[in-house]
Amino acid sequence: MVYINSNDIAKYDKRFRTNLINALTGFKSVSLLGTINAEGISNLAIFSQIIHVGANPPLIGILFRPHTVERHTLENILSNKEFTINHIPASHTKNAHHTSARWDKSEFEACGFTPEYTEMFKAPYVKESNIRLGCSFVERQDIQANDTVFIIGEIKEICLVDSVLQDDGFVDLETAGSITCSGLDSYHTTNKIARYTYAKPDKEPEEL
Amino acid sequence: MVYINSNDIAKYDKRFRTNLINALTGFKSVSLLGTINAEGISNLAIFSQIIHVGANPPLIGILFRPHTVERHTLENILSNKEFTINHIPASHTKNAHHTSARWDKSEFEACGFTPEYTEMFKAPYVKESNIRLGCSFVERQDIQANDTVFIIGEIKEICLVDSVLQDDGFVDLETAGSITCSGLDSYHTTNKIARYTYAKPDKEPEEL
Repeated sequence: MVYINSNDIAKYDKRFRTNLINALTGFKSVSLLGTINAEGISNLAIFSQIIHVGANPPLIGILFRPHTVERHTLENILSNKEFTINHIPASHTKNAHHTSARWDKSEFEACGFTPEYTEMFKAPYVKESNIRLGCSFVERQDIQANDTVFIIGEIKEICLVDSVLQDDGFVDLETAGSITCSGLDSYHTTNKIARYTYAKPDKEPEEL
Repeated sequence: MVYINSNDIAKYDKRFRTNLINALTGFKSVSLLGTINAEGISNLAIFSQIIHVGANPPLIGILFRPHTVERHTLENILSNKEFTINHIPASHTKNAHHTSARWDKSEFEACGFTPEYTEMFKAPYVKESNIRLGCSFVERQDIQANDTVFIIGEIKEICLVDSVLQDDGFVDLETAGSITCSGLDSYHTTNKIARYTYAKPDKEPEEL
């Protein structure tokens, strides 16, 4: 085993530390966040700090670093209270990564994605995505430790490609082609190991 | 496409809605959280609400539902300010899932995991895990929308199996055997698509 402590972490150069720490939380949710500003200019940005917050009401959380290129997304959410979350199909991995560059035009056009709108939201969905969520702003928490901002949103609309929604509500992300990521720049497809039954102490979990 | 709105979500039965909403955030980080209480009884619980918060200082965030079986983990963190995060190797997926049952003894013994300690932490690591993080409590944020609790921890110690740390700080989670999960009960291994270069607007990302 390799053992690394706080002193080591502090001494690493910035790029090494950033690669290391970003990888340690394991495989991550990764999606494209779609927003629109007051002038009607759409924005699309790749995010990996997204977590489930609750099922009823249906809530998700996103952590923002307000002093980076991602600030447009946060500004748009705070000003018009809407955003979309769009899973990334494996076929569009490189396009999705490219949205993280500092574009001076909409990332939709720049990176080869098509905006699509529903009646409910001004914020654009990504047509190439097979799982899309329309969300409204609910709550903001400012993290004291490093000035990041934790935004809670409620899922108001769900758009799923046919065939991924199963009888018990489970969504088959592999059939949808959704990817996961690790670190800052690594992208992965998945292979299902198993779904297991609700765990009880008196018996081993069984495959569903 | 299948379109689902807020009214539909509210009308679903609880189990269907829970499966659905838990799947929508995409593939998730999943790890075993190790803690210990004042009486010296260790606790091990599987968590999928873990996100990267920052690299300098090295911070992670975990979202807790305080009114569930997971409360022991949160209580232990709040009382002794320590916890460990242990990636789950694919070989121990079923064991890890089984920690979510309501055990009346330590989940280490019950589910076939071995506690291991370093000089720095009272909280137990999981010997079977190839990527382990020792963390200290930093900050608590209470989410108003659904009474969940967002805990920020600082990574103080990193234990990595040999060969997963690369020259630029990137950690190869696939070589470590770390899994990802989706929904409440589905577990997956991964296949790398690519690592891409830092994105710039004037050129396509290239594979690293």
